[in-house]
Amino acid sequence: MNGFYKDYIISALKEDISSEDLSTNAVVAKETAGTVDLICKEDGIICGLDVFNETFLLLDPDYEFISECKDGDFVTKGQKIGTCKGKIRALLSGERTALNYLQRMSGIATNTRKMADVLKDSHVRLLDTRKTTPNNRIFEKYATRIGGAGNHRYNLSDGIMLKDNHIDAAGSITKAVAQVRQYMRVVQKIEVECESLEMVQECLDNGVDIIMLDNMDNKTIMDACKLIGKKALIEVSGNINSARLEELKDYPIDFISSGALTYSGVALDLSLKNMVIL
Amino acid sequence: MNGFYKDYIISALKEDISSEDLSTNAVVAKETAGTVDLICKEDGIICGLDVFNETFLLLDPDYEFISECKDGDFVTKGQKIGTCKGKIRALLSGERTALNYLQRMSGIATNTRKMADVLKDSHVRLLDTRKTTPNNRIFEKYATRIGGAGNHRYNLSDGIMLKDNHIDAAGSITKAVAQVRQYMRVVQKIEVECESLEMVQECLDNGVDIIMLDNMDNKTIMDACKLIGKKALIEVSGNINSARLEELKDYPIDFISSGALTYSGVALDLSLKNMVIL
Amino acid sequence: MNGFYKDYIISALKEDISSEDLSTNAVVAKETAGTVDLICKEDGIICGLDVFNETFLLLDPDYEFISECKDGDFVTKGQKIGTCKGKIRALLSGERTALNYLQRMSGIATNTRKMADVLKDSHVRLLDTRKTTPNNRIFEKYATRIGGAGNHRYNLSDGIMLKDNHIDAAGSITKAVAQVRQYMRVVQKIEVECESLEMVQECLDNGVDIIMLDNMDNKTIMDACKLIGKKALIEVSGNINSARLEELKDYPIDFISSGALTYSGVALDLSLKNMVIL
Amino acid sequence: MNGFYKDYIISALKEDISSEDLSTNAVVAKETAGTVDLICKEDGIICGLDVFNETFLLLDPDYEFISECKDGDFVTKGQKIGTCKGKIRALLSGERTALNYLQRMSGIATNTRKMADVLKDSHVRLLDTRKTTPNNRIFEKYATRIGGAGNHRYNLSDGIMLKDNHIDAAGSITKAVAQVRQYMRVVQKIEVECESLEMVQECLDNGVDIIMLDNMDNKTIMDACKLIGKKALIEVSGNINSARLEELKDYPIDFISSGALTYSGVALDLSLKNMVIL
Amino acid sequence: MNGFYKDYIISALKEDISSEDLSTNAVVAKETAGTVDLICKEDGIICGLDVFNETFLLLDPDYEFISECKDGDFVTKGQKIGTCKGKIRALLSGERTALNYLQRMSGIATNTRKMADVLKDSHVRLLDTRKTTPNNRIFEKYATRIGGAGNHRYNLSDGIMLKDNHIDAAGSITKAVAQVRQYMRVVQKIEVECESLEMVQECLDNGVDIIMLDNMDNKTIMDACKLIGKKALIEVSGNINSARLEELKDYPIDFISSGALTYSGVALDLSLKNMVIL
Amino acid sequence: MNGFYKDYIISALKEDISSEDLSTNAVVAKETAGTVDLICKEDGIICGLDVFNETFLLLDPDYEFISECKDGDFVTKGQKIGTCKGKIRALLSGERTALNYLQRMSGIATNTRKMADVLKDSHVRLLDTRKTTPNNRIFEKYATRIGGAGNHRYNLSDGIMLKDNHIDAAGSITKAVAQVRQYMRVVQKIEVECESLEMVQECLDNGVDIIMLDNMDNKTIMDACKLIGKKALIEVSGNINSARLEELKDYPIDFISSGALTYSGVALDLSLKNMVIL
Repeated sequence: MNGFYKDYIISALKEDISSEDLSTNAVVAKETAGTVDLICKEDGIICGLDVFNETFLLLDPDYEFISECKDGDFVTKGQKIGTCKGKIRALLSGERTALNYLQRMSGIATNTRKMADVLKDSHVRLLDTRKTTPNNRIFEKYATRIGGAGNHRYNLSDGIMLKDNHIDAAGSITKAVAQVRQYMRVVQKIEVECESLEMVQECLDNGVDIIMLDNMDNKTIMDACKLIGKKALIEVSGNINSARLEELKDYPIDFISSGALTYSGVALDLSLKNMVIL
Repeated sequence: MNGFYKDYIISALKEDISSEDLSTNAVVAKETAGTVDLICKEDGIICGLDVFNETFLLLDPDYEFISECKDGDFVTKGQKIGTCKGKIRALLSGERTALNYLQRMSGIATNTRKMADVLKDSHVRLLDTRKTTPNNRIFEKYATRIGGAGNHRYNLSDGIMLKDNHIDAAGSITKAVAQVRQYMRVVQKIEVECESLEMVQECLDNGVDIIMLDNMDNKTIMDACKLIGKKALIEVSGNINSARLEELKDYPIDFISSGALTYSGVALDLSLKNMVIL
Repeated sequence: MNGFYKDYIISALKEDISSEDLSTNAVVAKETAGTVDLICKEDGIICGLDVFNETFLLLDPDYEFISECKDGDFVTKGQKIGTCKGKIRALLSGERTALNYLQRMSGIATNTRKMADVLKDSHVRLLDTRKTTPNNRIFEKYATRIGGAGNHRYNLSDGIMLKDNHIDAAGSITKAVAQVRQYMRVVQKIEVECESLEMVQECLDNGVDIIMLDNMDNKTIMDACKLIGKKALIEVSGNINSARLEELKDYPIDFISSGALTYSGVALDLSLKNMVIL
Repeated sequence: MNGFYKDYIISALKEDISSEDLSTNAVVAKETAGTVDLICKEDGIICGLDVFNETFLLLDPDYEFISECKDGDFVTKGQKIGTCKGKIRALLSGERTALNYLQRMSGIATNTRKMADVLKDSHVRLLDTRKTTPNNRIFEKYATRIGGAGNHRYNLSDGIMLKDNHIDAAGSITKAVAQVRQYMRVVQKIEVECESLEMVQECLDNGVDIIMLDNMDNKTIMDACKLIGKKALIEVSGNINSARLEELKDYPIDFISSGALTYSGVALDLSLKNMVIL
Repeated sequence: MNGFYKDYIISALKEDISSEDLSTNAVVAKETAGTVDLICKEDGIICGLDVFNETFLLLDPDYEFISECKDGDFVTKGQKIGTCKGKIRALLSGERTALNYLQRMSGIATNTRKMADVLKDSHVRLLDTRKTTPNNRIFEKYATRIGGAGNHRYNLSDGIMLKDNHIDAAGSITKAVAQVRQYMRVVQKIEVECESLEMVQECLDNGVDIIMLDNMDNKTIMDACKLIGKKALIEVSGNINSARLEELKDYPIDFISSGALTYSGVALDLSLKNMVIL
Repeated sequence: MNGFYKDYIISALKEDISSEDLSTNAVVAKETAGTVDLICKEDGIICGLDVFNETFLLLDPDYEFISECKDGDFVTKGQKIGTCKGKIRALLSGERTALNYLQRMSGIATNTRKMADVLKDSHVRLLDTRKTTPNNRIFEKYATRIGGAGNHRYNLSDGIMLKDNHIDAAGSITKAVAQVRQYMRVVQKIEVECESLEMVQECLDNGVDIIMLDNMDNKTIMDACKLIGKKALIEVSGNINSARLEELKDYPIDFISSGALTYSGVALDLSLKNMVIL
C-alpha cells in the first residue's frame, strides 16, 4: 500500500474534528508531550500500523512509534504492541481515528488468516472481492493480503469482469468478449462469470482468460473443471466459508473468492493505555 | 441525515471507477435504459435507501427508484424491495458502491434493532459511540438511529467527554471541568468517564452533566446510581451485549452505550437482479 | 483553535495568488532572505498570531517569527509586535493575506474586550453568535474568546436552538422539544428562543436547558427570570451594546449574546515595515 | 461577478452544517415547503442577492426568489425586499449563511456609496484595495463596485504594484521597472508607490503607467501632479475618509483608493420573517 | 470515456477564469443568448465533442450542440461541424478552453489515424503509451482509440510492466516475476521489457504474458518471435514511425506501441465563427 | 513560476497512480535508495527542472537533484543533465510523470527559442497566447518565457481583449470600450482585435492601449502602423511562422503573438538511465 491513501486519513480526521477537539484543547497545553502504549486486548493479526501512525503524524510531524511489531504479526491478549510518543494533543485527538483504522484492518486480516489457513497446503488461492467499505478499499484490500489472500481486481477500471447483465446487453458471451477486447487495455485479462456449462464452453471458444464458476454445486464445478482443463484460469465464487474451502481445496481450480473477507470483519479489540506526560 | 454526505459517495464512486468502467462501457451503449430489482436475500432492517439511490443519481440524473419500502422497515428473504430504473451504464457501474453502502447500513440497523429491542419496555436508552468506520460515520450513526438507538456525540467538536488522560493532564476532575467550562460552547453538556465512586463524587461536586460509569460491575453501578440520584445523567459503558442489557434494563440509569453497534455489523445480504433492457 | 484551519489559509493565499505574484517574482531572487517588522499603528488587543505566521509558513517552511507577544496582549500605537524572518518572496507575497487575517481577528478581539470589560465584575457571561463572516468562523470565534467572550454554538450541527419557525413547524414548543430530544445527540443541551412569558413557561414544563429571552425589555426579562429561577440557564439577546450590558449586568441571567461582536468589527491597523535583506 | 464563486458558498455551508442541521431536521419533514420574507431593518444599499439566492439553491434546486429589487437599490427600514420560496429545511438551514453574505455585502455597498457620493460630480474615481476579508474578495470587490467604486487590481497575479520593498530589493525604481517589464504580462500596467517627488520623477523617467502618491499631504500631492501632468495616471492613497475626499475631489488626479471600503464595513441589518408553510 | 472526467474540465475553466471573464461580462448581459458555428480550418479526424460540449454545459446548463458529426468522423477544411447554442457569456467564456481540448484531441486522433492506417490490413495492433500530457490522459487515450489505436495500460495501478530497473532491484527476471505475481491483482497480465534474447528466454521460463521487445533491430525481433512462438503476446516498442510500421506489419507480433501518438500531436485548427445573437 | 502549481503535479501523480504502483512496490523495498541519471537524447533547451524535481519530492521528501544545469540552458544529445537521488520507489513511480512535464516544457522552450531567435536583433517582442494545454498553462507559459518570448495575458481575468463578438454584443467599439473601462480593474490595459483600418481608427478615438492587427497582410499592417503611430501599442497576430517573423521584424510594431508556440510543441527526448542502488 502506498500512493495517496493519506487523503482518506485526512478526511477521516476532519470527520472527527470538524472544528477542534474541545475536551483536549481545554485541558492540555499545545506543547505538552508524552507517550501512550498500544495494547492488544484480543488475539489476532495486527494490520495497519502505517495507517495508525500516519494518523498521528498528520497531527504531529514529530510523532514516533516505538515497536518491534510489523503488519502480519500474530499478537495476543495483553501484549504491548508498541509505544506512541508525541504531543499529548495529537495522541488524544487522533486516538479514535487511528484505532478505528487499526482495529478494522486487523479484524479483516485476522478473519482472512483463518480462511487462508484452510488452504495452506493447497494450490488454490483465496481472493478478496470489491465488497469493501466505501472509501476504505485501499486499506481493506491491503488487510486481506496481509491476512494471506490475493487481490482480485481493485476496481472497475483495472479488471474486466463480464456478468450476466453485460452478456445480456451485448447479446451473447461471444459478442461481449469481442467488444471488450477492443475496448479494454491490452494488459488486462478477461474474466466471465458463468452459471452453466454452456456458458463455460462459450468462454473457452472465445479465449476467455479467467472463468468464474458462480454459485455452482461441487459436482458442477468438477464438470466445469474437466471441460476447461488448462485452457483458462478457474475462479470459484459464492457462499464461501471455511467448510466449503475444506471441500474445494483439492479441486483443479485456481482461485476461490469470498466477499465475506471484507464485509463481515469484526474489529480486533485494541486500545491506548498508560499515558505518561513527559 | 442530510447536509453534504454526497461528497463521500462521489469519493466512493471514484474509488471504484478510477478512469472508467471498462466492462460496462465496452458492451452497453450510452443511451440504453432499463430496470433492475433490488432483492433481499436475508431477513433484516433495510436502511440507507437515500444513499443507495443517490449513488445512481450521481451517475444518471434521471434515475428513479420505485418502491414502497422506507428506511427502518423489516424486510424478508426473497422480498423485492424496489425497482431501479435508469441508464444501464449507471445501474451497472453504480451497483457495487450502492450495495456496499446499503448492505452495511442495513447490517448495522439490523444489529442495533436486536439490541434495542431488549430495552423496548425500559426507560434506559441505547446509544452508539464514535467507533465507526472512517469516512462512514454519517451513514453509520444514521443507521444506529434507524435501528432504534440514540446518538452519542458525533465527534470531538460537538460534545465534551473527559477521560482519564484529560483528567491526568489537568491534575484533577475539578481542574479539568473548570478549564473545559471556559473553553467549550455553552450549549454543550459536560460528560466525565468515571472508574470509581470517588471520581463520581468529584463529578457531582463540580456539576458535571453526564457521568459515564466505565467498565464497572453491576454492584458498583448501583452504588454509583445511589450516589448520583437525579443530580446528573448516568451512562453505562463497557462490554455491552444483549445479556448485559437484560441485566441493566431496570437500573436507575439513563443510557447504555455500545461500540459493538457499529464495529461488529455484518452486511445484510442484498442484490440487484432481473435486469430488463427497455 | 486547532484542527484543520490551514485549509482556509491556503484557499485565501490562492485567492490572492491565482497564478503568481508577478511584482515580487520579477524583482526578488528565489533564495533572498530577510526580515520585516510587524508594527502596531493603533491601540488594541492582538489576536491571530498563529494564523499570521501560518500564512508565511505555507510559503516558506523555514519562516520564523521572533516576538514576545501572544494573543490577547494589549498592544499600543507604534509598538513593534515582532519580527518576521524568512524568504523575501514569502514575506512580500504573504503580507496582505497574513495582515488581512491578523487585522480582522485583532479588531474583533479588541471590540469584544471593550464589551466584556463591562461585565468584568458580573456573574453574567458575554457570548458570540453565528453572525460571522463566511469561511472565517473558526478565526472569528477564536477572536471573541481571546477578547473575553464565551462561545455560543459553533454551527447547526453542534447545538440545538429552536426558533419560532421550528416551533411553528412542529406545532408547539412541547412537540418540538419532544422531537428534537429523540433526534439530537444526548451530549447537547436544548435551547429555545422565547418571545413571551407563555413561551418561557412552556419551556420550563418541558425541561428545556437554556431559555433565550429574545428582544425583551428589561421588565419582561426580570419577570422571565423570576419564572425560571434556577430551572434553566437564561440567555438574553437582541440589540446589545455597552449601555445595555451595563443595565443587565446584575440581572439573574447567565448569558448575554451579541452578533455585533463579529459583524461590526473594524480591522486593527497593523503593518509590516523596515524590511532588511540579509 | 460570475465564475466559480459557488465553491466559496458551498464551503460556507459546510462550515455551518458540519454533519446536519439537527434542530431543523428533527422538527420539519423533508418535503415541507413554504415561504419567508426578506425584510430590511435599516436603510442602505442592497447587494448580494445572487449570492443570497445561490445559498438556498444549493440546498434546494427548486428554490425561487420573488422580488423586484436588484443589487444597488436603495432599501429602507421595514421594506420587504422579496419572498423566498422553497423547502422549509433549506430556508431554515441556509438562513444564517445567506444572511451573513447579504448583510456584509450590503454593508460594504452602503458604506462605499456614501464615500462615492462625495465624488459624484468629480472626475476622480474612488477605488477599493486588496484589504478584503480572506476568502470573500470576489464578494467584497463586487460590493464596492455596486456601491459606486472602481476595482483596483484583484490580486497579486493580475496587476503590477511596486512598493518600497520591491524597489529596495531591485536596487532602484529604474531597475525594478526594467525587471518587471520583462516578467509581467504585456496587457498589464505598471504602478509604483511613491513617497517623494524624487521617486515620482524616476517613475516618469521610466514610463510608469500609474503613480501612487502614498500618504502625502495635499501640498505634496499637488506638486507631484504638476510634475506628472498627463504623463501617467495618478492614484492617491492613505487615510482616506469623506472629509479628505471632499478636499481632493478637484485635484488633477485620477483615482483615490481606500482600504476602509472593505475593512470597516458594518453589516446591514436584514432578516427573514413571516414564515408560511404551504 | 466516462467516469469523472468533468473534474478536469472544471479545473481547466478555473485556470482560464480565476475571478471572472472581465471582457465578456462588461459587454454582454447575463441573459443574452445566441449561436456560434464550430468551423473546421484543416482536414482531419474530429475527436472530443463530448468534452467540448461539457465545457459549455458547465457554464450554461441549457447549452445545446446541433450537429450530425460524431467523434472519429473525417472533417475537411471549411466544413461547419456544428452549431453551439446557449448564453453568449458561456459561449465566449468557454470558447478557448473548449477549443483547447477539442483541437488537441482531434490532433492526436488525426495523427493516430495516419499511423493506424499503415496497419489497416495487418494483424498487428497499434498501441499508445503513458507518455501523455499531465492531467490529460483520459482525453488523450480516448483520442488514440478514436484514431484507431488500442490502449496500453492506463497507469501504474492497472497493469504490470517490469523494466530493467525493476529486474535489477529484484535480482533477476525470475525473482521479479515471482514477487509481482504475489503482489498484483490476479486479473492483470504480466509484461516484461526485454533487451536481449536471453531476457526473452527467461520470460518464457517464467510464464510472462506479454514480452516487450524494446529498441531491437528487425532481425533480433524476428529471432525473438521464433523463440516465443505462441507462448506469449509480443509487443514491439522504440522509435516507431510510419516507415517502421510498414516494415513490421507482417511480423508475427501482436502489438506495436508508440509514444509519439500522444507527445507529438499538433492541434487541429478549429474555430468558433458567425456569432448570432438571438 | 511559483504559487500553487504543486496541486497540478499532485493531480498528475494521482492520474498515474490511482491505487499504487504495483510493479514497483512488488519488487523494491520501501527503504531502498539509489540514483538515476537524467540523460538528454536530443539537442534543445532544458526547461522545467523545478517541476521535474517537485514530482519526486512529493513522493520522497529527502529526494535531491545534483546538477549544474538550469532552465534555459542549451543541452545536447547524450549529455547527462543531472543525477536524481532518493528512494528507488519514488524514482520509479515518479519517472513517467516527471518526464512528461520536463519533456513537454523543454519542447515548448526549444520551439520558442527558435522563433525568438529570428527577432533577436529586432525591437519586436514575440508573445505567447492562451492556446495552451488544459491544466498546463502555468507550465507552458513559463516555458515560452524561458524560450525567450513574453507572456500575453494569463487568462480571462487578468487582461482585457475585445474581439468581434464582444464588439457586436456591445454595438460598437466605442460602446464596448466604454463599458469595459467601467467594469475592468484600473491596472489593466485595454486591447482590441481589429480586422480593418476603420476599426483601428475607432480604437484610436477611444484611447485603446493595445491594438491587435488580426490576420492582416503586410501592406495593411503597415497602413495600420502609420495610422497608429505612437498612440497605442501594436500587436500582430495570425499564421505566424519563422518566415513571417523575418518579414515583420523591422515593422514599427511592438508584439507578434503566436499560438503555435504552445500548440505545436513536440516533446524533447529525455530519459532516466543508469539506476544505481545504494
